[in-house]
Amino acid sequence: MYSKAVVLLSGGLDSAVAAAVAKSNDYDVYALTVDYGQKHQRELQAAQNIGNAIGVQEHKIISVPLNRLGKSSLLQSGSELPTSRSEDEIGKGIPSTYVPARNTILLGLGLAWAESLGADAVFIGAHTIDYPGYPDCRPEFFKAFQKVSELGTKQGVEGKPIEIKTPLLEMSKDKIIKLGNKLKVPFELTWSCYKGGKKACGVCDSCVIRRKAFSQAGMEDPIEYE
Amino acid sequence: MYSKAVVLLSGGLDSAVAAAVAKSNDYDVYALTVDYGQKHQRELQAAQNIGNAIGVQEHKIISVPLNRLGKSSLLQSGSELPTSRSEDEIGKGIPSTYVPARNTILLGLGLAWAESLGADAVFIGAHTIDYPGYPDCRPEFFKAFQKVSELGTKQGVEGKPIEIKTPLLEMSKDKIIKLGNKLKVPFELTWSCYKGGKKACGVCDSCVIRRKAFSQAGMEDPIEYE
Repeated sequence: MYSKAVVLLSGGLDSAVAAAVAKSNDYDVYALTVDYGQKHQRELQAAQNIGNAIGVQEHKIISVPLNRLGKSSLLQSGSELPTSRSEDEIGKGIPSTYVPARNTILLGLGLAWAESLGADAVFIGAHTIDYPGYPDCRPEFFKAFQKVSELGTKQGVEGKPIEIKTPLLEMSKDKIIKLGNKLKVPFELTWSCYKGGKKACGVCDSCVIRRKAFSQAGMEDPIEYE
Repeated sequence: MYSKAVVLLSGGLDSAVAAAVAKSNDYDVYALTVDYGQKHQRELQAAQNIGNAIGVQEHKIISVPLNRLGKSSLLQSGSELPTSRSEDEIGKGIPSTYVPARNTILLGLGLAWAESLGADAVFIGAHTIDYPGYPDCRPEFFKAFQKVSELGTKQGVEGKPIEIKTPLLEMSKDKIIKLGNKLKVPFELTWSCYKGGKKACGVCDSCVIRRKAFSQAGMEDPIEYE
């Protein structure tokens, strides 16, 4: 019998690769997608399609209205999204797209499902290199959250804590793309753009980072841009 | 100007006392109540009434469907609630009323709101003495979560981490009741019973603990029992 893992699947490229890593490590994948009040639904549809394509045991999409609690340009009623910024600018400070306590909440939800499934791990596709400004994408944050898993859950108390797995944490985006390519991730189904258009905008921070990484990986990005 | 604090307000007695403690420490209180798929809505109505009575700056009630993720006798579609158990039995093991990762998720939501308010603290009315079986009511859990607050939020990175405040953590329930009495907590509005009847059942674990504590405090419990 395979072990079970909950994978936080956002619809983006990174979490799709994280799911593929979980599968390649012989986990049965339970995909969890959270509709947290993003500005558009495009990402959620992408998550559904990715889950179907890679083959998961079960896929839950749940609503948690973070837009009612936090301020972020990613959320409904938030400010304008940053576009057409240079890579230098993207790397500086805490970006307006930071969603307060998002990874804490997502991992908490992942833990809850993992406990009731008796799963061994929760996978998250976070990485730090391209997003140095996000406090909750740093290795020390995940280490602290691992402690919460050990101390705050039944499985932790019983000596079989659920592991927080961050297989992409120290990888650059072009390396993540190469790894995903090896694992046959359906990149054409992933959605990175901060906007919800028919095609990706190509100029928001997320599109800029994605396009550069595909180019560095020497691969063609299969999605269409405006 | 007063400092701001988010207080997790469940509708129960403990969180009402925690809110009163926050007010008595000169915080402006922002009450956060989470409808997480409890078996009944009685507690949520109680939370609303308590918020109104003690006077909060703002009160948000948000839905987070933990019943879709976790197994617990407290949740919709969960097993039968434990009733008519002796105090000895109540103290043993992890009870069926444990909701996987609940405090991690509640505190994560509290952090999110606290960040966007620029609040200094998140108050939670948890305590360990009467609930030794809940992993996420133990001091070591809250210490681990404090680290998450320090490392996983913008305010933490900027050197002004949001404090996780557990003013009742080491208090027995009768002491909590005495403190609440001093702070004029409207106990008649609080709801502790695991069931959602017109009157409290008097025999579930939560009623048993509450009644004994009022009696130990030498006070009359103002709510009606069946």
